[in-house]
Amino acid sequence: MKVMGIDPGTSITGFGVIEKKGTHLKHIHSGHIRLVAKAPLSQKLHQIHQAITKHIHAFAPDHVAIEDMFYAKNPRSAAVLAHARGACLLTAHMASCEVFEYSALQVKQAVSSYGRADKTQVQGMVMRLLNLQKTDIQSFDQSDALAVAICHLNSFDLQQRIIAAQS
Amino acid sequence: MKVMGIDPGTSITGFGVIEKKGTHLKHIHSGHIRLVAKAPLSQKLHQIHQAITKHIHAFAPDHVAIEDMFYAKNPRSAAVLAHARGACLLTAHMASCEVFEYSALQVKQAVSSYGRADKTQVQGMVMRLLNLQKTDIQSFDQSDALAVAICHLNSFDLQQRIIAAQS
Repeated sequence: MKVMGIDPGTSITGFGVIEKKGTHLKHIHSGHIRLVAKAPLSQKLHQIHQAITKHIHAFAPDHVAIEDMFYAKNPRSAAVLAHARGACLLTAHMASCEVFEYSALQVKQAVSSYGRADKTQVQGMVMRLLNLQKTDIQSFDQSDALAVAICHLNSFDLQQRIIAAQS
Repeated sequence: MKVMGIDPGTSITGFGVIEKKGTHLKHIHSGHIRLVAKAPLSQKLHQIHQAITKHIHAFAPDHVAIEDMFYAKNPRSAAVLAHARGACLLTAHMASCEVFEYSALQVKQAVSSYGRADKTQVQGMVMRLLNLQKTDIQSFDQSDALAVAICHLNSFDLQQRIIAAQS
């Protein structure tokens, strides 16, 4: 199964596609979309939409995984992030990809077994799990997107095994 | 000039198309999109996208006007609303409509000359300005969408006259 993880943002949106065969995780492609800084918000959202659509078509993920809303203390930060998140959810749905959401805690636990891991620790574990070099990862947005994809692949696999055991 | 106003929401999204000829405002079409309550957020955003796209194609507005983010005290409320707003901005941009944003204060002042008007007062003024009956308006979402369209038509007109006077 192939999963695209997305880490939305209105400055940079990270994405990463991973394939799981048996217990092996294979990094297919990842990167980030750097948005035109002074562009109107509608144009930034369109830039996210176009890039994510292009990568979904290129790599044909079965599912899209995205981090659940980070409820920032500042409503303005939450609102800005949610615009980008809304564009990603809509884009995935338009491309007929089923979307799965995970909390920051679930994502961190999936890659580090430790809910309070910082971005550097998450990046380190993502690199180790996917056998990537430092030069393969350009930003925390990219590694965070790969982390949510790993989280989904592990969670979904477990869910499927529970369903199979119950039937 | 024809303008579509949008009042985004994840329960109901209002919309309204108004045409201005000289100083006369003509109501073309308005209504609201009631979203499937228990649907996943990505599906609700797609429902907004499909409906707004359909109405943009049907009524061919020159511009889309939308209320600036209401910075709710509660980050969760701000975040939920911003997802719908992000979907509307993206949809307008995808349909090649230029998007204009106005604060709640600007919208209220445009229809009531009073920045603290409540939704009922805004609805009453929208009905009077567009010569609509009570039965024409189904919700505050619809009248709020018409109000932001009126706000844009008046503001844009004024801006154009200022530009013309300066040149």
